[in-house]
Amino acid sequence: MRRITFFMVAVALVTSLIAFKSSAFRSTGQADAPIFVTEMPAGYREWRFISVAHEEGNLNSFASVLGNDIAIKAYREGTLPFPDGAIIAALHYKFVPSAENNKAFGRDQSFVTGAPTNNQFMIKDSKKYAATGGWGFGHFNNDGKPVDEAFMKTCFPCHQKIKERDFVFTRYAP
Amino acid sequence: MRRITFFMVAVALVTSLIAFKSSAFRSTGQADAPIFVTEMPAGYREWRFISVAHEEGNLNSFASVLGNDIAIKAYREGTLPFPDGAIIAALHYKFVPSAENNKAFGRDQSFVTGAPTNNQFMIKDSKKYAATGGWGFGHFNNDGKPVDEAFMKTCFPCHQKIKERDFVFTRYAP
Repeated sequence: MRRITFFMVAVALVTSLIAFKSSAFRSTGQADAPIFVTEMPAGYREWRFISVAHEEGNLNSFASVLGNDIAIKAYREGTLPFPDGAIIAALHYKFVPSAENNKAFGRDQSFVTGAPTNNQFMIKDSKKYAATGGWGFGHFNNDGKPVDEAFMKTCFPCHQKIKERDFVFTRYAP
Repeated sequence: MRRITFFMVAVALVTSLIAFKSSAFRSTGQADAPIFVTEMPAGYREWRFISVAHEEGNLNSFASVLGNDIAIKAYREGTLPFPDGAIIAALHYKFVPSAENNKAFGRDQSFVTGAPTNNQFMIKDSKKYAATGGWGFGHFNNDGKPVDEAFMKTCFPCHQKIKERDFVFTRYAP
């Protein structure tokens, strides 16, 4: 009788452990796996203006940062965290001198957008993108295709540095 | 009789000359007097994005150039001259380094918008602004008031340098 009881308890314990481990593994797998944005949101070129930025060095870029209605409203009202549905787009271009502007000014001082280089997006969906602060990150080169996962895995670790503004670096330009 | 005829002819001639001169002066006065934009157009902060620019030197500025629906449509379709009703807005900010972006990147490379400095507008009305290429120019400092006429008189002579694009320097960023 003791042996049978021991066997039953042991079976129950092992079964529970397996069940627990498999459930833990599954939920950990879901929560930690970053999910990226694989398609550019429709209509982003019609969105309103948040701000502009310039990066020197290798990037040598001009960014125009635009927001959909939900993002613009949240920025203007100072809502943090951004509500689900907010999308922020960074349209990147080469940062190039403008020969015609310089000629008009009579000195070399003017820089404008050159060829477009890439579009980046942050899409807020606190459930779908729970593993990355509620934001889905997307990066699309000029061919419109998303870049590889190795590159995409670098987005959130950097944006984590600005966690106090819901992982968003760009401030609203009045 | 000869004297009277001579006198009458002389009077008629002088009267005509005076009439001609005064009419010529009046119409010349109307056509050449530049008229400036004295109020900022409503809703310009909601307009769509045309492009961005940076000026070095004394200006040290970031510009975000926006357009109302008529201007955006004309840009996208390549319509020149711009149709009446088109408005182009240049929102200017100080060009400042971003300490928080630089910290995230791990190097000094990032520039963002600082305090807003002025807003400039070009409003197309081929009749009202016939003297200045059909464009009314406006420049408003942070207090929302237009700047003085001496300053405003410098707008069109510079924009005349890009007459082939209907006096508009900024190109549309795709």
